[in-house]
Amino acid sequence: MAMKTGEAYRKSIKSLGLKAHVLGETIGDPTVHGLVEPSQNAVAFTYDAAHDKETKTLFCVESPLCKDVVNRFTHLHQSTDDLVNKVKMQRYCGVQTGCCFQRCVGLDAANAIFSTTYECDEKHGTNYHKRFKDYWKWIQKEDLVVDGAMTDPKGDRGKRPVEQHDLDLFLRVKEQRRDGVVISGAKLHQTGMLNSHEILVMPTLTMRPGEERWAVCCALPTDAEGIRYIYGRQSSDTRKLEEYRLDVGNPIYGGQEVMTVFEDVFVPKERVFLNGEIDFSGTLVERFASYHRQSYGGCKVGVGDVLIGATALIARMNGVHKAGHINDKLVEMIHLNETIYSCGIACSATGERTAAGNFQVNMLLANVCKLNVTRFPYELARLATDVAGGLLGTMPSAADLEDPLTGKYIRKYLASNPEYETVDRMKVLRLIENLVAGAGAVGYLIESMHGAGPPAAQRIMIKRQAEIDKKMMKVKTFLGIQ
Amino acid sequence: MAMKTGEAYRKSIKSLGLKAHVLGETIGDPTVHGLVEPSQNAVAFTYDAAHDKETKTLFCVESPLCKDVVNRFTHLHQSTDDLVNKVKMQRYCGVQTGCCFQRCVGLDAANAIFSTTYECDEKHGTNYHKRFKDYWKWIQKEDLVVDGAMTDPKGDRGKRPVEQHDLDLFLRVKEQRRDGVVISGAKLHQTGMLNSHEILVMPTLTMRPGEERWAVCCALPTDAEGIRYIYGRQSSDTRKLEEYRLDVGNPIYGGQEVMTVFEDVFVPKERVFLNGEIDFSGTLVERFASYHRQSYGGCKVGVGDVLIGATALIARMNGVHKAGHINDKLVEMIHLNETIYSCGIACSATGERTAAGNFQVNMLLANVCKLNVTRFPYELARLATDVAGGLLGTMPSAADLEDPLTGKYIRKYLASNPEYETVDRMKVLRLIENLVAGAGAVGYLIESMHGAGPPAAQRIMIKRQAEIDKKMMKVKTFLGIQ
Amino acid sequence: MAMKTGEAYRKSIKSLGLKAHVLGETIGDPTVHGLVEPSQNAVAFTYDAAHDKETKTLFCVESPLCKDVVNRFTHLHQSTDDLVNKVKMQRYCGVQTGCCFQRCVGLDAANAIFSTTYECDEKHGTNYHKRFKDYWKWIQKEDLVVDGAMTDPKGDRGKRPVEQHDLDLFLRVKEQRRDGVVISGAKLHQTGMLNSHEILVMPTLTMRPGEERWAVCCALPTDAEGIRYIYGRQSSDTRKLEEYRLDVGNPIYGGQEVMTVFEDVFVPKERVFLNGEIDFSGTLVERFASYHRQSYGGCKVGVGDVLIGATALIARMNGVHKAGHINDKLVEMIHLNETIYSCGIACSATGERTAAGNFQVNMLLANVCKLNVTRFPYELARLATDVAGGLLGTMPSAADLEDPLTGKYIRKYLASNPEYETVDRMKVLRLIENLVAGAGAVGYLIESMHGAGPPAAQRIMIKRQAEIDKKMMKVKTFLGIQ
Amino acid sequence: MAMKTGEAYRKSIKSLGLKAHVLGETIGDPTVHGLVEPSQNAVAFTYDAAHDKETKTLFCVESPLCKDVVNRFTHLHQSTDDLVNKVKMQRYCGVQTGCCFQRCVGLDAANAIFSTTYECDEKHGTNYHKRFKDYWKWIQKEDLVVDGAMTDPKGDRGKRPVEQHDLDLFLRVKEQRRDGVVISGAKLHQTGMLNSHEILVMPTLTMRPGEERWAVCCALPTDAEGIRYIYGRQSSDTRKLEEYRLDVGNPIYGGQEVMTVFEDVFVPKERVFLNGEIDFSGTLVERFASYHRQSYGGCKVGVGDVLIGATALIARMNGVHKAGHINDKLVEMIHLNETIYSCGIACSATGERTAAGNFQVNMLLANVCKLNVTRFPYELARLATDVAGGLLGTMPSAADLEDPLTGKYIRKYLASNPEYETVDRMKVLRLIENLVAGAGAVGYLIESMHGAGPPAAQRIMIKRQAEIDKKMMKVKTFLGIQ
Repeated sequence: MAMKTGEAYRKSIKSLGLKAHVLGETIGDPTVHGLVEPSQNAVAFTYDAAHDKETKTLFCVESPLCKDVVNRFTHLHQSTDDLVNKVKMQRYCGVQTGCCFQRCVGLDAANAIFSTTYECDEKHGTNYHKRFKDYWKWIQKEDLVVDGAMTDPKGDRGKRPVEQHDLDLFLRVKEQRRDGVVISGAKLHQTGMLNSHEILVMPTLTMRPGEERWAVCCALPTDAEGIRYIYGRQSSDTRKLEEYRLDVGNPIYGGQEVMTVFEDVFVPKERVFLNGEIDFSGTLVERFASYHRQSYGGCKVGVGDVLIGATALIARMNGVHKAGHINDKLVEMIHLNETIYSCGIACSATGERTAAGNFQVNMLLANVCKLNVTRFPYELARLATDVAGGLLGTMPSAADLEDPLTGKYIRKYLASNPEYETVDRMKVLRLIENLVAGAGAVGYLIESMHGAGPPAAQRIMIKRQAEIDKKMMKVKTFLGIQ
Repeated sequence: MAMKTGEAYRKSIKSLGLKAHVLGETIGDPTVHGLVEPSQNAVAFTYDAAHDKETKTLFCVESPLCKDVVNRFTHLHQSTDDLVNKVKMQRYCGVQTGCCFQRCVGLDAANAIFSTTYECDEKHGTNYHKRFKDYWKWIQKEDLVVDGAMTDPKGDRGKRPVEQHDLDLFLRVKEQRRDGVVISGAKLHQTGMLNSHEILVMPTLTMRPGEERWAVCCALPTDAEGIRYIYGRQSSDTRKLEEYRLDVGNPIYGGQEVMTVFEDVFVPKERVFLNGEIDFSGTLVERFASYHRQSYGGCKVGVGDVLIGATALIARMNGVHKAGHINDKLVEMIHLNETIYSCGIACSATGERTAAGNFQVNMLLANVCKLNVTRFPYELARLATDVAGGLLGTMPSAADLEDPLTGKYIRKYLASNPEYETVDRMKVLRLIENLVAGAGAVGYLIESMHGAGPPAAQRIMIKRQAEIDKKMMKVKTFLGIQ
Repeated sequence: MAMKTGEAYRKSIKSLGLKAHVLGETIGDPTVHGLVEPSQNAVAFTYDAAHDKETKTLFCVESPLCKDVVNRFTHLHQSTDDLVNKVKMQRYCGVQTGCCFQRCVGLDAANAIFSTTYECDEKHGTNYHKRFKDYWKWIQKEDLVVDGAMTDPKGDRGKRPVEQHDLDLFLRVKEQRRDGVVISGAKLHQTGMLNSHEILVMPTLTMRPGEERWAVCCALPTDAEGIRYIYGRQSSDTRKLEEYRLDVGNPIYGGQEVMTVFEDVFVPKERVFLNGEIDFSGTLVERFASYHRQSYGGCKVGVGDVLIGATALIARMNGVHKAGHINDKLVEMIHLNETIYSCGIACSATGERTAAGNFQVNMLLANVCKLNVTRFPYELARLATDVAGGLLGTMPSAADLEDPLTGKYIRKYLASNPEYETVDRMKVLRLIENLVAGAGAVGYLIESMHGAGPPAAQRIMIKRQAEIDKKMMKVKTFLGIQ
Repeated sequence: MAMKTGEAYRKSIKSLGLKAHVLGETIGDPTVHGLVEPSQNAVAFTYDAAHDKETKTLFCVESPLCKDVVNRFTHLHQSTDDLVNKVKMQRYCGVQTGCCFQRCVGLDAANAIFSTTYECDEKHGTNYHKRFKDYWKWIQKEDLVVDGAMTDPKGDRGKRPVEQHDLDLFLRVKEQRRDGVVISGAKLHQTGMLNSHEILVMPTLTMRPGEERWAVCCALPTDAEGIRYIYGRQSSDTRKLEEYRLDVGNPIYGGQEVMTVFEDVFVPKERVFLNGEIDFSGTLVERFASYHRQSYGGCKVGVGDVLIGATALIARMNGVHKAGHINDKLVEMIHLNETIYSCGIACSATGERTAAGNFQVNMLLANVCKLNVTRFPYELARLATDVAGGLLGTMPSAADLEDPLTGKYIRKYLASNPEYETVDRMKVLRLIENLVAGAGAVGYLIESMHGAGPPAAQRIMIKRQAEIDKKMMKVKTFLGIQ
């Protein structure tokens, strides 16, 4: 078993020597930058959990591909149980890190590419599936983090790729070479990119005839020549650079979003998994999206657990935990969170085997899952705000707490339920602030809306999967209507 | 395989010679009464489906208890797959009948009693489990319908059973005899009672010391001496007695609710499964309720499918099916319906084996399921009303359609999309009316609120199951709070 | 002061000798028919209230048109205070009758026609405004009920009037005569038609060039030759014909919807107020609709008050009124109901004088008002169902209560809080049933959705009135964007 | 007319020489601090608007108290029109500043104290009303900003003031002197405190016998000895201190929250308006709260307008403005925003004259207004997030845009609808981010929840004002129940 520890993982990333642009500066070693480190901690957690006695049975799984035990984050699902366990693992990571741990996207990409390349080969006589299997076997053995890069900048949303004033606004093959392809473009919102060893590039939507150049799927190392990383801002991000950690809210972990530019990057042939077969671009997008919408039925539920726990705790610290309406709000938060979880479990338990042999989630229910994720975390955040109290938006800084001139007043006047220290109450408030209006809100709210596609995308898929015609036909029969 | 057909079932009920009070009259043979017949059709459907090629694999299952194939409606769940299949079967029955098919309650009661009696015997050395197994083996062999009777009248809700001005307001053991018990009281809202062969009486809440008399579980035949049935009214119920069937909405099927009075009814010892062991009254209630809350994740979803199909069809008939907002409303209906279904599946897929060997649903998620059922069908009904149009509340009667004086005007002015007949449009509108404001609304809305307990009951269970303390503890650890 | 009493009003309607088709029969004197009577009681209430000491200051108002005191239900609004008082009067009528009292539609039509004809005359040199003033002066003096007839059958919604396979599917001028016009078509969902003396016909949507025939507004007596009335069904309507009144729910009042067919009906010139001026058809529709959407901010709030009162009472009767969650649900009901009321008041208080001199509501806020009415009553009904309990859908009939065989059991087992009689508890439950799933639900739910136009119509108006471009421009300035 | 300009206002504040603690530092002149300046700009706006031709008729009003024209922000309402105009003025300020402009709280406090002191004097023979009139006449003449200080720290919410382990946790009179009182305690969440000339201290809840010390209302200058200001943090607050303004979102304005400590501060007798009369503490709290809940029906609507405008603009910039679902979301945002506004208008239009002669809002509707404010802005923020897209949470910094190395890539890949500059698109995205998850979210979301009291406080007031007993009585009469 070659599974890395968190420490080994950190070293492996450091050794890549990636460069990034952060807040206007070019950073030589992003792994030590204050904005990046928390996000790397979250990824490292997924490695350590595979070595933790309590959780290794959930995180470790025998892979028929490489015939060895692998971290489930690199596993090709062999059963509905695997799908269910993926969701359980994600919920666990969410509750332990309180943020996006960034490693699902590559897992979801791999499973989608695995089955799509198989079917593409069947139809077009291409050789992508074999290539991908070789590639992924290596990923499993090396236990790597893979970024799944789908979202193109898209330019003017009212236009197709070929109609954009700049053809790079959708990532494309700029040059076909005998030994590979040269790609050009960008991928936005790349979660955990600088914490990744590899990138799986995928098309962003169903390509049509004439758009073959944009129907490309391939793998790249993150240190490939011609890739440039520009770090995304988050609310309150620079608190991570301040002297005192208290105001960050989440003491250890955090998310990461990176705008990634591909400037004439060469990809060797054996790393290309789709190249112009437009009829499989949509299949790939839909499958990846569905897996990733399932993922949110786990990870966001875990973060929801943190928010619920923090809300219950602040209620106790405020001395209001016996009030009926507080209790009701907590129950409502749990109810909504578990409804999302139910959708995550249900789309897994009703998944099906693909022609390639791995398991695909139930696409209808996975989209239903994600559509709920675009709603319920917002209500959880609203309820948490309600219970926590106005200090969420008015509390003095950690620096004022440390200042002897003001610290004593803060301690005196923010004291509440005497069973708890004022500073601990402040910690809980800052954690809630982080999730409802700070850096954590990027992962818990904005990403819940747009990650794996916005609600409109889920609605289209729900309509397509729901067999409305069959439902109408049934009613006709029921009523004796010809 | 002795599984009855629908026809054989009908005969077996008829042969019981039950009597009932319906709309102020005493009815000798309720099976032929216009108010009762549609409800019996719905139960009969559950029998025929076990003989239907398309569905028999879902409805038939090998029972280790009687070592034979039985109708799944009498099955003790042996796996999470069984739990999942139960929900699928219920959704199927819902979509085929468009109403409550009444046969789940006995199934849910049996599974709850099976595991509870086992644990009661373990603790108290009683003999209930053996008795119940014998009893249920007979039910399976005879393929009977069993009513699960839980809800007591409860009198003044602010008071305990022992404090009520009339001790019968909670059903109780009035007399302990050597060979059995005499019970007295009533059970309200008894779904499908007159279509049942047997009754499983259960306590309605957790009994406390001093309330042993009320902690009783036992089985009775529906034709036992001393039982009296008073039929419940439904909105628009008497349309079922009118000359023209069109205005009923649901052309064949319907629900049934019966107030059932037990006046000094004797129950022989071998049919008594709990008698004073108050510490198991709560267990029994919770388990039954959880199974039944799971059930709603199937049956109501099926009825929801009918409503969605009818709404899609009326949109087409009205000629508005291409409007974006109509499409959005249909997608929203599907989304909400499938969210309920996801909860039904999830609480099944994460169910667990009991000490007695059958499978119990995940209690947290089953309650989450039902709590959604107290909300989403209402929104589905609202959206269906929106799409269907004002005729839902203003359309002339079937008698006016048949009247030559007025029929031609109705045909002329209610004509819409010319691909459809006006009369068919009227049928669809009446079906929707049935579900949102007619007899079907009793099953789809009122029962969705109160069947298997009102929302407040689910909230209590959710709170109890959600391990809030553990969530708080995790946050403390996360933040380094002692 | 010639204002009629309720009694005088009844006589005046009776003297018209209207005929109607009800449930397949042709009825000579609808005023004594069991289905019609409750609806006439509700209209009569609006007459008696103008003579009631407590309410006459609200119901009576000096009209500058006829220079006399008139019933506010015939008043042309002279100020924002008049608009506010209209809403207050409607709320009062709603809470007193618990149903639709049917007299607003003519009032709203009159105010819209008054200002529209003025502007039409200004532009086209027509003479409609003068005609209408004469006509309405007579209405005020005679204190008549006027039905406002707008909604055409519309046939295939995907097509324009001129494209329908039957040109009558939108009511039209079939023949222009020197002395008037002949109209042909139908108006659906005509609220209170058989309780009206007069009809104001209006176009149903903005007509376009080529659709001049359909741009017609005129007045007719309800006993005009060629008009035919077909009564609309409501949920549980025939309970009004049963021996016992208890099961009806609303003991005295009820609504009325009538499909009205115009078969070559002649309208004399002096009663024609629009005839082909398509550029004013939309104005008329929008103004009428906005007034009528304001109306719902009064009448439905009044019915909401009844539902809230009944829910509070049943909570007390059930003995649960001290439970925190019951209290919360009542507060939520009040909150939603008062939110609607606020919209009714706000669109009145910010109304504006028209060129003709009467006052028009704020169109944006009136549409916002109505859009809330398509949502909140549904939630009120859901909450009432929650609090009331399952008996709403399972309670035995009044006939069973009267039957000595069963009555005693019903009295025994439906007894609850001993401060109240069982029969009174049953009355309250039947009233709630009436509003959430019975005849009253037609007025409180279905009509709240579709009366004065469905939600999609309000959304179009909201968009048109909201000045989004101005909002965008402001943001551009704010951000220094050219 | 002595009304100050914004410039004069700024000077007058500067001249006070206030000191404050900000992010751990003691600041000599807060008016020039980067965190404070934007908030002062917002207050200054309320001064300039009174001199602006376009708006002076709204902002200037004749005060009978000082017999001169005053800024409406210091006006005692003389009519319901005044109340309505207050809301209109607030909406205008909201849309112009996009944030909390901080000047309402003193206005609301003054109106509440004016009527309460009158009634207190009537009952107790005190002299508070005269004192307050003199004081407020001076405020009007000097055109000052007054902070209304109500919210005490409250310590353990489960305990009364007298039960707290530290008696200062509710601000109290520590010493009664012949010439005045000495107070001790703190007020949290003090909006705009450092931009104020004066403070009106009020009790935080209804005091009971034994709590007379805490029933204190008085006025203080902000530069009084013994007061200490500790600045509250907001999400992303330090972006205001960064080199580039773009990332702040709101280019000019911002909010301000200050924890204010009173350490043995002396208040001369003529500035004391309540001192132990516990029976008027609740009256004062309720009236102030109701005025302030009305205020939110204006100011938050104005900020909502900014968010709607920004959302419409970003839709256009993204090229999605023609999509039906985008349009629907904008309409929904408008609908919700105007519903709040309707409540603001309605509670004003139905206000009533107090015994003292000024006008009080309708308390029921003002609380309904605020309860909607605790919900709808959250949905507006969610919908804005939906329409804006994922860049909200992942966009690179302004510093990266300015960096020549990365700026060109950002310009290239964040280009969208070619009618707009990329930098302008970024401005709009940062403005939306500001309101949904940045510094503006403190005002638009957290303050919408807790400002003027949390939802539970509104629910209590709604219940108290709603006359449920009267509603029940009406239903009893309606149903003939004794």
